[in-house]
This record gives sequence, C-alpha cells and structure tokens, in this order.
Amino acid sequence: MIMSEPAAPETGGGLTRIWLQIAYDGTGFSGWASQPGRRTVQGVLTDALSLVLRCSVALTVAGRTDAGVHASGQVAHADVPAGTDLGLLAHRLARLLPADLRVPMIAPAPPGFDARFSALRRHYVYRVADAPWGVQPLRRLDTLAWPRPLAESAMNYAASRLLGEHDFVAYCRRREGASTVRELQCLHWRRERDGVLAALVTADAFCHNMVRSLAGALIAVGEGRRPVGWPSEVLACTERSSEVTVAPAHGLTLVGVDYPPGDQLAARATRTRRPRQ
Amino acid sequence: MIMSEPAAPETGGGLTRIWLQIAYDGTGFSGWASQPGRRTVQGVLTDALSLVLRCSVALTVAGRTDAGVHASGQVAHADVPAGTDLGLLAHRLARLLPADLRVPMIAPAPPGFDARFSALRRHYVYRVADAPWGVQPLRRLDTLAWPRPLAESAMNYAASRLLGEHDFVAYCRRREGASTVRELQCLHWRRERDGVLAALVTADAFCHNMVRSLAGALIAVGEGRRPVGWPSEVLACTERSSEVTVAPAHGLTLVGVDYPPGDQLAARATRTRRPRQ
Repeated sequence: MIMSEPAAPETGGGLTRIWLQIAYDGTGFSGWASQPGRRTVQGVLTDALSLVLRCSVALTVAGRTDAGVHASGQVAHADVPAGTDLGLLAHRLARLLPADLRVPMIAPAPPGFDARFSALRRHYVYRVADAPWGVQPLRRLDTLAWPRPLAESAMNYAASRLLGEHDFVAYCRRREGASTVRELQCLHWRRERDGVLAALVTADAFCHNMVRSLAGALIAVGEGRRPVGWPSEVLACTERSSEVTVAPAHGLTLVGVDYPPGDQLAARATRTRRPRQ
Repeated sequence: MIMSEPAAPETGGGLTRIWLQIAYDGTGFSGWASQPGRRTVQGVLTDALSLVLRCSVALTVAGRTDAGVHASGQVAHADVPAGTDLGLLAHRLARLLPADLRVPMIAPAPPGFDARFSALRRHYVYRVADAPWGVQPLRRLDTLAWPRPLAESAMNYAASRLLGEHDFVAYCRRREGASTVRELQCLHWRRERDGVLAALVTADAFCHNMVRSLAGALIAVGEGRRPVGWPSEVLACTERSSEVTVAPAHGLTLVGVDYPPGDQLAARATRTRRPRQ
C-alpha cells in the first residue's frame, strides 16, 4: 500500500525523512552500494529519486547486499524536501524505475527512525533445489541448483547448534575495526511445496558473506561431505575459515527487516551505534 | 522424481514410448512448435533427445504454447529405441539442456498413452499484479503488471457465466476445419499471498489464444471498463470478437495436464480424435 498522506512531517532544515520498502532482482546489479561505473541498486534508485525531486538525495539502507543478491523486503530511508507529495513520488518512481527494481512502499518515517541503526533484526531466505533435473526455469533467478540430494534433517540439526550470540569471524569477510559478534536468532531449512529447500536465516545483523557462508557449510553437511557437528566446530576458529565455501549469491534474498515500536526507534539507534564487545 | 526403471517396455518396431514432464520459461522461446531459424521448446528438446539417443526423435505435446507462454507441467511423449536407460537419459538431458528448459520427469508411458489425444483436461494459470508500484522483480517473468486496481469479485462473477460447453469462436483465433467448441471447467481468480491476482483456467482443451482472450475480457471487467455481463454476451458472436483484447503472453503458464486411468487411455484417445459437433 502506498500511503496517501499528502506530505511527510518536517524534521528540520526543510527536510523530512521517508521510509522506503525496496524490492529487486539482484541479477543485473553489482550489489546495493554505489560504485563508479557499475549499475548498483543504490545508484539507480538515488538517480531516480534525485531526478524526480530535483535535488540530491542520499539513501541509508538496512542491509547492504552483495552483487547478485536479491531483496523483496529491503528498507531504506532518505531525507527529502519537506512538503513532498509521497503519493506522487511513488507514482513517478514506478514509471521511472526499471522492472528489476521496485519501491512497494514510501511512507513518512516516524521520529527517530534510521533504516540501518533502528533495525532490530534482518531476515534472509536461501533457496537451493537438489532435484537431479535442476531448478524450475521460472525460479532459476533466485534458486541455486545443487546436483546431489540434501538431507534437511542433518542440516537443521547442524543449524540449531549455531544459534545464539557468537563471534562469527569464521563465517565472515572481516572489516577492519568492526566486531563480528552477532546473535543468530533463526536458521531453519524446510521443503517448499515445489521441493525446493529454503532456509530462513534471522539475526540482529549480519557480517559480510555470513549468510552465504552458513548456507555453504550446511549444504556440505546436507550432502554428507561434513559431519553434523562440523559447522559449530568451525565457530571456534579465530579467523575466517578457508574450509567454508561461500554459497553462490543468486540463491539469497533479503526478505524483511524488523523495527521496534515508534517510541523505541531513537533509543535502539543509539544503542546499535555503540561498539559491541 | 526420476523413475529408475532400467528400460521402458517395448511397444513394437524396436521402439518404446516415453512420457516426459517439461517445464520452461517461455521468455526466450518462440513458443512450443518447431519453426525454421527460431529457438523453440520443441526444437531445443528434440535436438537434445536426438543427440543423446543418436537417432531422430519426434515429440507430441499436450498443449502447444505460443511465444512467451511458460509451462511448469507440460506433458509430451516420444518413441525412443527399446531398452533405452531412462535414468541415464534424464541425467544427460539435465546436463545438456539450457536452464530455461527442464525435464522434471521421464517415465515409460503406459500402453495406449498419447500426450495430446489421451488428455482429459489442461490447467493454465494467468498472473496479473495490479499494485500501483508494479510486480515483484523476481516474479516479473511470469506476471503481467496492470496499472489500475482490479475487482476480483466482478471478475469471478463474469467468469462463472462462461463455464460449461460453448462455442468459444469469439475468444479464439480460428483454425480452418477445426471446431471451437470447448468445455470450460474452471475459471477462478484469487489473490495470492503476495497480492497478485491469479486465475486458474481449466478446460478439456483450448483453442488458439483462448486463455489469453478470456483473461483480457475479464481484466476489462475487473477495472470497470466493461459490465460483468459482457464476457458472456461476447460468447454469442459467431466469429472472433475484435472487442476482446488478448492479454500478454508472459502472464500465462501451463501448469498441468490430466489423464484418465491407464485402462482408459486408448479409449480416450480414440474419442478425442473424433471431430466434435
């Protein structure tokens, strides 16, 4: 639903903050983050917003996705001129944006809202088809084809031992000065009606490559190449494990981001900005 | 599931009949039927089968689909050398075929089976998204974007009046000497969880363009451009109606074909081959 408020409330400096829900097919994008000379989601969307609003606009996103990763429930915020007609903005974006990038919702952001720092948790889905004949052609964009059968019960047993707060450095590409401690809240595989194995993966936040590394480790368990206890043993490594294969990007979709109630948005943002031990 | 029978039963002449379930993304194909110089499903699959089996193979299909139309449950038969290892054939096809064309099942055909003439009915789905922001990018291949909201209750009322056996000539591209009498058994729109309107359309068989013409007429009702009684009034036309818009191909998918029990396959084929009054 597009909110039909005629204008978003002013937040100071003649600007007002908007909340955008964003969906994209990652196939044709070099990831979220703007890069010179590359087609990125942030780049295409920033250009469209700036063109419609006739001013430069900066987007802050909840989950930076890598090249080839998709989103159905990405969230971002932007500060736009106060008095902007959000219904008209949504209409113009729908006409201007390419078919592989859509903005299902634009709404005035509540006070204190920050798409990145106010977020409580991110939800991803990883899809893998292990049928010997491959992937349904109409779902091949967001589903990995795996040539050998996968045992979901083994994958789920292994996954359950990864839950909770850990240093996930073994499963991450490290960024200088940043913590790799995360709370993994859900990691569960189930068979969809079409036979595809889909993992729902939820954490307060994810480090770089973390979901794809977890998926890669669990696929190794599912096909019997690694014992069920192995993924949790890898957690003990104090640096990135070279034994973990990062699963391909195109099986991964960011499906949603959770936020606290409006009166806790600012406090959550303040708390998240603090470095984690 | 791929049947693991080592070989299909011989049906005479050193040949044995196989049943293939076929799935494709129609985007990159000029429809099912082979055409010189065009990439077609029949052409690509026939070439792959002939290459693996080292002999020329002819495919007979349940539902010839037009350019751009998809299938998840297409059915065909072919007569192949007796003794062919079907598990190995499936494995080789999976490696040889492009990602937009898959063969989820190959099995020995029961005696009397004819993919086209033994079929009892065909099931199609037409998908249309009427959200103002457009179509989820990952489903844009098989979903039509409609810029105005559609009233599904009006569409379903109009659809219910089209059910039953009628001469559907108003909704068809006529073929010389062929009947246009068909029994429309189901035509029902429902909202999927993602908000997309999907029609399940079932008939004993369909004439050329019939599903897309019915979808086009009902979309006109859904957006209020035509009264709910109009689609059934059009049925009275004795030639193709120029007022009916054929809905775009990419919203349409052949999802399944039904066959009678094994002991009735041959009788059904004989009956279907008879010209209809």
